[in-house]
Amino acid sequence: MNDAMRSDEPSTNAAGPDEVDFISGRTRIYGIVGDPIEQVRSPEMISAEFASRGLDALMIPIHVLPADFDGCLAQLMRVQNLDGLVFTIPYKRAAVTLADELGAHARATGAINALARRSQGRWAGDIFDGMGCVEAFRRRGYAMAGRRLMLIGAGGAGAAIGVAIAHEHPRSMRLYDIDPKRAADLAASIRGVDSSIDVSVGAPVTTDIDILLNASPVGMLTDPRMPVDVSSIAPEVIVFDAIVKPEPTKLLALAHDRGCRTVFGREMMRGQISKIVDFFSGSSPRVQ
Amino acid sequence: MNDAMRSDEPSTNAAGPDEVDFISGRTRIYGIVGDPIEQVRSPEMISAEFASRGLDALMIPIHVLPADFDGCLAQLMRVQNLDGLVFTIPYKRAAVTLADELGAHARATGAINALARRSQGRWAGDIFDGMGCVEAFRRRGYAMAGRRLMLIGAGGAGAAIGVAIAHEHPRSMRLYDIDPKRAADLAASIRGVDSSIDVSVGAPVTTDIDILLNASPVGMLTDPRMPVDVSSIAPEVIVFDAIVKPEPTKLLALAHDRGCRTVFGREMMRGQISKIVDFFSGSSPRVQ
Repeated sequence: MNDAMRSDEPSTNAAGPDEVDFISGRTRIYGIVGDPIEQVRSPEMISAEFASRGLDALMIPIHVLPADFDGCLAQLMRVQNLDGLVFTIPYKRAAVTLADELGAHARATGAINALARRSQGRWAGDIFDGMGCVEAFRRRGYAMAGRRLMLIGAGGAGAAIGVAIAHEHPRSMRLYDIDPKRAADLAASIRGVDSSIDVSVGAPVTTDIDILLNASPVGMLTDPRMPVDVSSIAPEVIVFDAIVKPEPTKLLALAHDRGCRTVFGREMMRGQISKIVDFFSGSSPRVQ
Repeated sequence: MNDAMRSDEPSTNAAGPDEVDFISGRTRIYGIVGDPIEQVRSPEMISAEFASRGLDALMIPIHVLPADFDGCLAQLMRVQNLDGLVFTIPYKRAAVTLADELGAHARATGAINALARRSQGRWAGDIFDGMGCVEAFRRRGYAMAGRRLMLIGAGGAGAAIGVAIAHEHPRSMRLYDIDPKRAADLAASIRGVDSSIDVSVGAPVTTDIDILLNASPVGMLTDPRMPVDVSSIAPEVIVFDAIVKPEPTKLLALAHDRGCRTVFGREMMRGQISKIVDFFSGSSPRVQ
């Protein structure tokens, strides 16, 4: 009865010509919840990670409007074959109240991007954006220790990135958010991780920095705006954008044209996908 | 930006090695709602029909418990990228109240098995089981006109099958349901379609019939029960079972051993899948 193990080899369970072989009544469902939803990459990337592990599970996009969030999530969590959710803009902070238990990064940032069904109907939440961003820089060989950083956006993803980077011990971090309180709160969290980091809050700067990180939604999809004036960025600056669509974002495309090294949102996603699927599978996430 | 058209050929939109190519943030979601859910075939079969038409859409299993049905469905219908639902046991009757407009078969049976999002947030409902059963017999070349039928089960699927078969003008139809009122209601509907059919209500019979149809859940999954005593069925009787899992059901396996011709639940599904996807796509369903 268990055909969770998949293979490219023909088998007695092989789908016929009028069937697909990647979903059935037994497939466990996971969803990514956001508004908008078209730009997300989790459905194809997390579903691929499930398949590579031989898990009969799928991640679908779930487009929920802000006015529906509380009512809709309460009911989605009652769907018996839905085992986990990922949250993206604008729900990473709102989703924190859905969890019965929180991981260390979620506690530090007040946001989650993954929620997993545990035994006895309990749900565990944690946030993996920060670990994913740090992992993306590690894979590129770009050190953060001792560097001067500008972080734009202190929402769910931005806060997670800020806290994770703080563990890498940069020299300075300047924080900007359209909501000054969110930037100030993140500054406090960062100082709690490493009090030796020179943390400041204020308008975005493009000079006297080594790394520029955009974790705001500015530039997503067809948004023509830019989070900063790229023409003032020196070619030595490494530019990162958490946005996965368009790819590259206008910020990354123009930074590349100026000779900057760039790190893509998709690389951050790759860095965290394995950790999120571990979390869904009940393995303990790595706590930095 | 539109990669809804799919192909087995490599393309610039092809998924990379860490991605699957059958789902993305733009994929439109459809679900089949039931309890239990593991046995359903719609996810693989309707998803295959979507793919064969070049539609970027997927059908997922949604396991909803009876106590959650009203609350959960109200919220699922607010998910912006969820465009349609299929209902299976035990929800075909309960789902009828979710529709703003009903097709002819749904009105005749008081049940739906498909609900499609229309413009202005309206939802259209209809039931396709009956058309699917009749189509399955047609494809086999087994006529129903002039035949003597025994139909077990007058729930959502059973009522739809009874009404659709009535349009085929059998000689007689005997109806049984664990709930006598449901059988009596279906008898009235059948007489409304064709008053010349000899309709009776009572315990299942296996003699003096040409076709035996099981549309009850008896025998589904690991249910060891049988809807009738197969040992009394003559080899000339054609036996149909609406259940799709196990395949074959115990009823069909034993009937086959006795030399009976058999028609499978999967054949009924095939008969209705194209019509359901037409309905989801906004094409008018064929009204018999």
